[in-house]
Amino acid sequence: MFRTVEWTDKGIVILDQTRLPGELVYITLQTVEETAEAIRTLRVRGAPLIGVVAALGMALAAHRFKGQPGELAGYLCEAYEKLLATRPTAVNLQWALTRMMECYRRNQGAALEEVQRALLAEALAIQQEDMETNRRIGDYGEKLVRPEARILTICNAGALATAGYGTALGVIRAAHRAGKIKNVWACETRPVLQGARLTVWELHQDGIPVTLLTDSMAGYLMRRGKVDAVIVGADRIAANGDTANKIGTYTLAVLAEHHEIPFYVAAPWSTVDLTVDDGEQIPIEFRDPREVREIGGCLTTIPDVPVFNPAFDVTPHRLISAIITERGIIEPPYRENLQAIAGTGNT
Amino acid sequence: MFRTVEWTDKGIVILDQTRLPGELVYITLQTVEETAEAIRTLRVRGAPLIGVVAALGMALAAHRFKGQPGELAGYLCEAYEKLLATRPTAVNLQWALTRMMECYRRNQGAALEEVQRALLAEALAIQQEDMETNRRIGDYGEKLVRPEARILTICNAGALATAGYGTALGVIRAAHRAGKIKNVWACETRPVLQGARLTVWELHQDGIPVTLLTDSMAGYLMRRGKVDAVIVGADRIAANGDTANKIGTYTLAVLAEHHEIPFYVAAPWSTVDLTVDDGEQIPIEFRDPREVREIGGCLTTIPDVPVFNPAFDVTPHRLISAIITERGIIEPPYRENLQAIAGTGNT
Repeated sequence: MFRTVEWTDKGIVILDQTRLPGELVYITLQTVEETAEAIRTLRVRGAPLIGVVAALGMALAAHRFKGQPGELAGYLCEAYEKLLATRPTAVNLQWALTRMMECYRRNQGAALEEVQRALLAEALAIQQEDMETNRRIGDYGEKLVRPEARILTICNAGALATAGYGTALGVIRAAHRAGKIKNVWACETRPVLQGARLTVWELHQDGIPVTLLTDSMAGYLMRRGKVDAVIVGADRIAANGDTANKIGTYTLAVLAEHHEIPFYVAAPWSTVDLTVDDGEQIPIEFRDPREVREIGGCLTTIPDVPVFNPAFDVTPHRLISAIITERGIIEPPYRENLQAIAGTGNT
Repeated sequence: MFRTVEWTDKGIVILDQTRLPGELVYITLQTVEETAEAIRTLRVRGAPLIGVVAALGMALAAHRFKGQPGELAGYLCEAYEKLLATRPTAVNLQWALTRMMECYRRNQGAALEEVQRALLAEALAIQQEDMETNRRIGDYGEKLVRPEARILTICNAGALATAGYGTALGVIRAAHRAGKIKNVWACETRPVLQGARLTVWELHQDGIPVTLLTDSMAGYLMRRGKVDAVIVGADRIAANGDTANKIGTYTLAVLAEHHEIPFYVAAPWSTVDLTVDDGEQIPIEFRDPREVREIGGCLTTIPDVPVFNPAFDVTPHRLISAIITERGIIEPPYRENLQAIAGTGNT
């Protein structure tokens, strides 16, 4: 089984997801700048994985630090800012970076080696916890899946989007282990094709039956009665349950409501952002027009056509049947229920 | 301005739409087989244009005939079958071929040259009428467009899909001439990318403002209040108003209803098939999985993943605000109103 990310003496080794499924290439990130570049250019992607890699990036910064002891705080702040600036929508990035800075503050009187050790331990803990979190999400979510299920998903909320196992695909993995999966419908997920490139590859590796379709085919598929549930990941969940996820998710949610198909969001609690009241306030990343104008470097249209290219959209909470987290399955009313679960503490 | 198709002494000259927008290549179809191949492989596409090219293909057959007088009927029947078998969904193909066979029957006692002349005149009449039909569709449809309109469309129901001017894009052209178009949103239209390749190119040629998006972005665009109307073409309209059109159209119709945006179908009367009671009975073409697995010949996924690739879907009549034809704007109840207009005869 592939690893998405691994800490080594030489740096952070990542599976370069821009090369999949054609090539399985691992690269080593040796600086914070390289780490930021890898996140920005989608070599690593998926909200939980971005958080893990950014945390390791902070540990890397501490290990690369060559200045005077008094300069470390500023140096780490700079690393924090560089990593935070890479992508605006997924809150896991901010959550992981904040946790790393808190760890630093707890250790800031200690010797450099001590600080390095503490930051690395914290980053590895985030990585390890993410894996366990996904298992728990899978175990909870599996109960929502009926036998012979045909599940539709978009983008890749899988092992490739996390430290391992996956969120939406974690639920599918657990349901597959329980013998319940008849087929996974993978939307190709234009413009970056994470569904075609990553989800298909990942499920195929695990022997889970998967069929590819273009995003435009999901409605017709539902109308023909071939979808039992939609399960997607999340990049940020607001206090009222509104959920930002890969562009195209909102359309699937509207279609699911129209066809009376349950629509589930699977995400770690670190994706919940109670400081954001509703989806309107979630910043949406707009990316390079070339992602839409080109596929695999080939122009599909005229070179200078204006393009609309939001990387995410927001699904309003009333279209979401349940949110599956490692703390359990959360149902409406989301504002009250998210708040109640937040109150149970960070366990 | 480009021509999509032209009869010449050497054969049927077509603009090869598989090469657009990169190259403007005209090829000459010299046999019925080449004509069928051009339709099947989407060198020419769009329901009205398929009808025109198939009609010219029948004229070509008559001109290429070298047998005994008694063999002409069988020879033309064979050509009819070859052309009809190319694509199942668009009814204009069958409509045009039937009209050509009726023309043959009217002339079947005459000398070969007489028959050739009659069939060519009929095919050219179909071509000429299609152009005029589109102008009338444009004139009727323009009245439905409000000033400063932002119109969303899918696929290419334009000059490239017809003998000229277009159906959905004919309405947009007429509205643009009336100074009403602020922007056209062109869905790229996976898998074959007729929106990115053809609609963007065609509108750009005419100086009509166009912005490209992936099919997955339409929902978010509507939610942000940036779409005033959806206008699409049609491949077949059943007696109850259910409409087959490019895959993805149905999703747009569900989204339009959800956002209370008018959804219009623009098509010539030849697209109406009163022999088909409802959309369930319209045959849907499923095409080669490679269209989904590849883009521009480049594999985007693993080579052997199963694929769902319907070329069309059916939009139920209750999601359609109005059908714009050359006989006027048809509103619900469609069964009654289509029947009433059919009764007014083929004028």
